[in-house]
Amino acid sequence: MSKKTAKKTPKKVAKKTSKSKIQNTLPDIETNFGEWFNEILFQADIIDYRYNLKGCGVWKGYGFKIRRKYLEIMRDLLDNTPIPHEEMLFPLLIPEDQFMKEKETVKGFESEVYWVTHGGLTPLDVKLCLRPTSETAMYPMVAKWIRSHQDLPLKTYQIANMFRFEGKNTRPLIRVREITTFKEAHTYHESKEDCSEQIREAVEIYKDIFDSLGVPYLITQRPKWDTFPGADYTIAFDSILPHTNKALQNGTIHNLGQTFSKTFDIKFETADGNQDYVYQTCYGISERGIASIVAFHGDNFGLKLPPTVAPIEIVIVPILFKNKEDDVMKVCNDYYKKLKKEGFKVRLDTRKMSTGRKYFHWELRGVPIRVEIGPKDIEKNQIAVVRRDVKGKNFIPNDESIKYLSNLLEDIQQSLHKSAKKRHDELIFRTNDLEEAIDFVDKNKGIVEIPFCGEEECAESIEKRLDGLKFLGIPDRYLLVLNKRVKKEKDIFCSHCMKPVTQYWRIGKSY
Amino acid sequence: MSKKTAKKTPKKVAKKTSKSKIQNTLPDIETNFGEWFNEILFQADIIDYRYNLKGCGVWKGYGFKIRRKYLEIMRDLLDNTPIPHEEMLFPLLIPEDQFMKEKETVKGFESEVYWVTHGGLTPLDVKLCLRPTSETAMYPMVAKWIRSHQDLPLKTYQIANMFRFEGKNTRPLIRVREITTFKEAHTYHESKEDCSEQIREAVEIYKDIFDSLGVPYLITQRPKWDTFPGADYTIAFDSILPHTNKALQNGTIHNLGQTFSKTFDIKFETADGNQDYVYQTCYGISERGIASIVAFHGDNFGLKLPPTVAPIEIVIVPILFKNKEDDVMKVCNDYYKKLKKEGFKVRLDTRKMSTGRKYFHWELRGVPIRVEIGPKDIEKNQIAVVRRDVKGKNFIPNDESIKYLSNLLEDIQQSLHKSAKKRHDELIFRTNDLEEAIDFVDKNKGIVEIPFCGEEECAESIEKRLDGLKFLGIPDRYLLVLNKRVKKEKDIFCSHCMKPVTQYWRIGKSY
Repeated sequence: MSKKTAKKTPKKVAKKTSKSKIQNTLPDIETNFGEWFNEILFQADIIDYRYNLKGCGVWKGYGFKIRRKYLEIMRDLLDNTPIPHEEMLFPLLIPEDQFMKEKETVKGFESEVYWVTHGGLTPLDVKLCLRPTSETAMYPMVAKWIRSHQDLPLKTYQIANMFRFEGKNTRPLIRVREITTFKEAHTYHESKEDCSEQIREAVEIYKDIFDSLGVPYLITQRPKWDTFPGADYTIAFDSILPHTNKALQNGTIHNLGQTFSKTFDIKFETADGNQDYVYQTCYGISERGIASIVAFHGDNFGLKLPPTVAPIEIVIVPILFKNKEDDVMKVCNDYYKKLKKEGFKVRLDTRKMSTGRKYFHWELRGVPIRVEIGPKDIEKNQIAVVRRDVKGKNFIPNDESIKYLSNLLEDIQQSLHKSAKKRHDELIFRTNDLEEAIDFVDKNKGIVEIPFCGEEECAESIEKRLDGLKFLGIPDRYLLVLNKRVKKEKDIFCSHCMKPVTQYWRIGKSY
Repeated sequence: MSKKTAKKTPKKVAKKTSKSKIQNTLPDIETNFGEWFNEILFQADIIDYRYNLKGCGVWKGYGFKIRRKYLEIMRDLLDNTPIPHEEMLFPLLIPEDQFMKEKETVKGFESEVYWVTHGGLTPLDVKLCLRPTSETAMYPMVAKWIRSHQDLPLKTYQIANMFRFEGKNTRPLIRVREITTFKEAHTYHESKEDCSEQIREAVEIYKDIFDSLGVPYLITQRPKWDTFPGADYTIAFDSILPHTNKALQNGTIHNLGQTFSKTFDIKFETADGNQDYVYQTCYGISERGIASIVAFHGDNFGLKLPPTVAPIEIVIVPILFKNKEDDVMKVCNDYYKKLKKEGFKVRLDTRKMSTGRKYFHWELRGVPIRVEIGPKDIEKNQIAVVRRDVKGKNFIPNDESIKYLSNLLEDIQQSLHKSAKKRHDELIFRTNDLEEAIDFVDKNKGIVEIPFCGEEECAESIEKRLDGLKFLGIPDRYLLVLNKRVKKEKDIFCSHCMKPVTQYWRIGKSY
């Protein structure tokens, strides 16, 4: 076998293997996104949903490592605000009487929670619910902690599992019964103004989180009728998932005012010696963030992980030829050690399988960079570099390679983010023509902004026009809390009642 | 006020404040360890047990940070074994039929678990238990993952919350209803020999964990009648807590053989093409490790944290005098930045309160090193260094201080470990005289080794002699799996039946 032929062989096999495998095992992402999504979670060892209880899955090794990076990003931001958020952990079980105390919140949850009624064979005196969110677990305790304005602001968060008694219509990472990864921050303040400031901080934190993941979003204030029960207002981060073009609520931020502090008697002594109830905010993010990483950066070959969350940034695949195995393995091993020492998260794939199968394996798992080293490369003192996100192979001289790889990771990070954002932007449409808007949503083209008056009745009438149509709410550019100056539109009229209005609202389909 | 008087004042106040505070708030550790333990958890912001459900507490900011370090140590060791342990996460809820499948294990648990019977107002078709441990959640899934000997060994672990329906007699971090921090490793192997090798690896991991915490232990194989249901044998890490001198089971390691793989049908194709059931081990550690840190390193002033788990290694307290505040604050701030840059976990205490109260605050929380900087120190270009574990103050020239502090942390770590070990060693006694042994245990002097035959009947007879007396089991020096050569004692006779025996066994009181 001549060198030339030999060198071509693994490449060809790789392509063939990849393509044939993909056709056999991963459904087409464009035409069958739902199936593709389930299948990639399974095949890439992220979550295995074959557990004997619907809506509950097992985080496998690779997925758990992505989850770790995701949580690191979150913790790093929350721990390092000028006044840090303190991580805490509250009990999972909430006694019924305590849970029922906040009627306004519970209204939304009591039929959706799991109830523990027995300890062993003995019925419990008071039944216990599995937290669907932790306000009622936290606030009675916080009422014991806060005494004076000197204890404020208090910023806390926890990352824990939550439970919702969902119907049969569950969806991996998006609508589940055990939300394994729910981050909820709860903050306590002296005044309304401090709450507004906190809302701004929360928005910035969430922007940073999703930007780090390369996940695009829209910031939208939910309509009054879709506000978190008890809150003054709710601001949501929605991401329009590609392929389905439906909005996924990825995070919510609530200004709670004094509703809960009055119910749970969280009082403090003010600077001038009076008593007042604290002002509160809370904001949550779940494992939907990971669903978004998968959805935004996937393709028919599998995942494309942004380096920020990639458990492995670089995989080295030795290109082995007869009688040269030892040489190649030695160089690969040395290069592996070198990259490791430089701080890269690197894996050397020494498994006994074809090169093509290795390519396929790591492409599926979205490893950002593949380095190939074969006898030819050793001769030329170079490495071959293949990036996961765009096609093409580059040969890089060894002595420039560290810097090259480091820059390339940065480049992949930005490029994934940029292309996701570009696609996301194209899914947002603005029109004054309601028919056109409804047609756009009906054809699953994305989210539309229409002129709107803000009345629930008008919204209901419009929502009736199309199954699944929802009012997402008011775009961030109109929100006083987030802008120094708020834009007011001119010469537009509510799409239903035709009153003159000053804002467009967002409508669309959502998960 | 002369400089001399001024300088003395804060010191005196500090001592007075500390002492008077301590007398008022922390019970005496020697005579009232139980109360001291509860109180220090509360006062040092570790866990607040005033939650409205017995046996469930809230991890507060400072405690949560200790817990983080504790888990980091664990993860670091498990992730970096030659064949890494992969972290995963399994569902909390286990359907009744699945849970009941392993009768032998469940025997131990069915009356001790919480049962979820309702979703909203609807009774569930199959009731769900909250995991008391995860064998029955994991093994049906693992049966789907393992196909061939090439999939072995598989080493997995998870860190999650567990639930036990305990009686009213709960105890913070030691006997709780929600175990918030349970690490369980589960491993799968081709052969019995591989299991033995894994047991040795597990023992080494646990040694490393407890050594890092400065927590002493005894390694003991549990008697047959106290082996984990279904296991071939169980090896436990017990720590004899100071002051009560009772054994706390801090970790267990089980050789499961093929019991579970047969029940859950976890089969693999062997290298020679046959089918066999996998061989398994599992090993667990809980938040009792944190209880041990508190217990072993506490005193009447509060915690003494080993630097490995200290959220703050060094606290800087500015010594302020009128008209010199700005100078001192500037130097403190610069020094704070310097230490931070050097990688120390450091806090600068700028709160508006007396120096004495600050000393008290940080002593209670066990911060290993306090640095004081006042006008005199600035003049002399020095810092004052006070270590938490032993009395005394040292003045260190500024330009030697980084190295000094770094060495001091190492020294404190070792010194805490050493003194805990010394005290622990003194609580272990060996005698051939049963009366003496029982008297030793009865007087709460610790753990005794007595000659013993290994028969359950003999053990029962001896246990009857003293309320709370338990057979802990066989010391590690006699265990074949852990030793190349096993010691055989000569000329000793079972303390009950008087048969000639070759081993001493450990007996004592336990938590």
